[in-house]
Amino acid sequence: MNDFTHVVTLESAKAALEEKWRPKPRDVVIPAASAVGRVLSKDIISKIDVPPFDRATYDGYAVKASDTFGATERSPIELRLAGRVVAGTWPKMVLRSGFCAEITTGAPLPRGADAVVMSEYVVPADGSVTCYRAVSPGENVTKRGSDIRKGQPVLRRLKRLNYLDVAVLAAAGVDKVMVRDRPRVAIISTGSELVEPGARLRPGKIYDVNATSLSESVRACGAEPIFLGIVPDRFSAIKAAVSKGIKATNIVLISGGSSVGVGDITPGAVASLGKPGIIVHGIAMKPGKPTFIAVVKNKPVFGLPGYPVSALMVFDQLVADYLHELSGVPRSPRRIVPAKLASRILSAKGRKELVPVRLVKKNGQNFAEPVLKGSGAITSLSTADGYIEVPLEREIVDEGEVVEVKLFEGVDHT
Amino acid sequence: MNDFTHVVTLESAKAALEEKWRPKPRDVVIPAASAVGRVLSKDIISKIDVPPFDRATYDGYAVKASDTFGATERSPIELRLAGRVVAGTWPKMVLRSGFCAEITTGAPLPRGADAVVMSEYVVPADGSVTCYRAVSPGENVTKRGSDIRKGQPVLRRLKRLNYLDVAVLAAAGVDKVMVRDRPRVAIISTGSELVEPGARLRPGKIYDVNATSLSESVRACGAEPIFLGIVPDRFSAIKAAVSKGIKATNIVLISGGSSVGVGDITPGAVASLGKPGIIVHGIAMKPGKPTFIAVVKNKPVFGLPGYPVSALMVFDQLVADYLHELSGVPRSPRRIVPAKLASRILSAKGRKELVPVRLVKKNGQNFAEPVLKGSGAITSLSTADGYIEVPLEREIVDEGEVVEVKLFEGVDHT
Repeated sequence: MNDFTHVVTLESAKAALEEKWRPKPRDVVIPAASAVGRVLSKDIISKIDVPPFDRATYDGYAVKASDTFGATERSPIELRLAGRVVAGTWPKMVLRSGFCAEITTGAPLPRGADAVVMSEYVVPADGSVTCYRAVSPGENVTKRGSDIRKGQPVLRRLKRLNYLDVAVLAAAGVDKVMVRDRPRVAIISTGSELVEPGARLRPGKIYDVNATSLSESVRACGAEPIFLGIVPDRFSAIKAAVSKGIKATNIVLISGGSSVGVGDITPGAVASLGKPGIIVHGIAMKPGKPTFIAVVKNKPVFGLPGYPVSALMVFDQLVADYLHELSGVPRSPRRIVPAKLASRILSAKGRKELVPVRLVKKNGQNFAEPVLKGSGAITSLSTADGYIEVPLEREIVDEGEVVEVKLFEGVDHT
Repeated sequence: MNDFTHVVTLESAKAALEEKWRPKPRDVVIPAASAVGRVLSKDIISKIDVPPFDRATYDGYAVKASDTFGATERSPIELRLAGRVVAGTWPKMVLRSGFCAEITTGAPLPRGADAVVMSEYVVPADGSVTCYRAVSPGENVTKRGSDIRKGQPVLRRLKRLNYLDVAVLAAAGVDKVMVRDRPRVAIISTGSELVEPGARLRPGKIYDVNATSLSESVRACGAEPIFLGIVPDRFSAIKAAVSKGIKATNIVLISGGSSVGVGDITPGAVASLGKPGIIVHGIAMKPGKPTFIAVVKNKPVFGLPGYPVSALMVFDQLVADYLHELSGVPRSPRRIVPAKLASRILSAKGRKELVPVRLVKKNGQNFAEPVLKGSGAITSLSTADGYIEVPLEREIVDEGEVVEVKLFEGVDHT
């Protein structure tokens, strides 16, 4: 397994993994107020009518509508004032014919009343009011349950909650919801040359990028990244870190050190943790050839390339779908953007090639410009918006050909 | 000021506010790792070359390229092995002609070397290697500064950082950045009828929605909401809450209680806090007529309608732009979506009307369906995607007319 004689296609690699491991979504109950972005596990059924009572839509006077029939600017009618109902209180009175009650917006209608005359059509005097307008039954009243009916489904299973949905939950008085649990994803960067941003850069060292870029990619899939630190190229250190990841999380991502070479100890360290161990080592894809997949204690471990852009593209091809399946967060339909290729790409037959590109708009048309800095370049991260796939059997993609650009997770093309 | 005789247009209302208050963005220094979504206050200039040294792009052998000239599969050349360079270390050797050094991906090239022969073209023996391929100077080497050059601007002022940008900051070793400070926005819900979601609903009470929906709208503008609680319709309680908001935050939003009626004590309570006090009370807009704007201690206080959909639409028209200006977060260009009106709208002349709509796609065409539940309805929050504006001078907008739908902040139409 430590040469690349067993290189397989991406599809075969996924199939091999899925024989040993299938993503199983889990549920968790959380406060509704912090549920924006989360995915409902169950339909939400309202336990109350909203509003829970007939309420005045405007400030005015609660009346029996029939008492006002015929009232006009020129021939007003007189009603006796029975009292006052203020929002937030519960009226004990029962309104009899010939009477009215002053009422504020949102206050419950007293029993007997069935409409509200707005303040501007009424002139109050001592103990009585003059009403200059007729109202029909139900006028200026928001009926109990007119907004949400008790027992009615308010939001459906698998809905990803936006803040308006959460506001609706608030209205229905729902303060806890069952949502898809966010899968926890361990992130490990390997390489004795890596140091954390902000630390002193000694000779021979570079700053680690993958911890940041993979964490945010994981987050964009609706999962929770847990960074386990930078680990030197030592068997025991890598073994300990992956072991910790397997204990503490659902999925482990380890980047760097998966190539076949002097520093190639990561797959070995992972394999030593238990059966079935390494399932795939080498995918017919550029970049991604040194990628490995292992399953240890029923949890998948993905070995990604060390180069940041390569790691992101392989993450997108191999890992992202599983995270979306677990979190329930759908992939953005906007993540695939058609564009014209700005310059010809040459590719090797027999492997899929992923080419980072930036999207440029010219005369209203999207162009995909290959980012030429190479997989080792980090600035291509800020230049590239995504990548295109050149299939196994293609050797040339011509300038001007329409290609599909897959945007990196969380990158938004406007 | 407590009748609506001074109703003004939205534009005049904003102009009146801006005579007394102008948004002044502030800056703050934060850790780069938590800067996703934030807006840069200054250009980021790299203090280092990235990579900081010439490094091997692949595992192999560091050589003087000229030593390999002429080497082929059929006529390999022999080189003596001078040692080994591992990523993360700094080589002390100086490579002389006729020698090579084993090198791992990412390791610094020893002095004297200028290229790397990949492992697959080399057969090592004891103390020497046989090299089957010529390389040109620079081949398989990532040159110092090729990615980011010291002193070069990496990211520009006012860029909103996505996670790829943050990864680039990591690569440049930047661990702190100066970004736009998030404006702090106090949110107060008034109404003796309101209770917090999850609490027991006694007769006459309803659940508060605006705390949730306005908080999330504020967040979508790049600002930080601070909920100060539900306040009953009492002068002293409202005065105390607004006063607290003015002390603790940059902007105060208070919803409900701004209508002219029995419960209309909010504007009075705000006015009592100091000069200039209420600047606008009443905007020629439906909903939004009872909206008020005050300035107290150089901070703006916006009085929004109590009905959730109304509050959101008025927030969008009146408040959102100021928050975007302060936070530096641009409004999404996707927030305005053209659509055909699905049914006729009748509006009153002399005021702008905001009509909540939902977007429906039929045969690839967007249709805007007016949401008819009325401003008191809360479910229209989850039904409506945004709203359309009917200008002051229009009385009818016909079915089939093309209208611009303004999406609510944070709602994403796909």
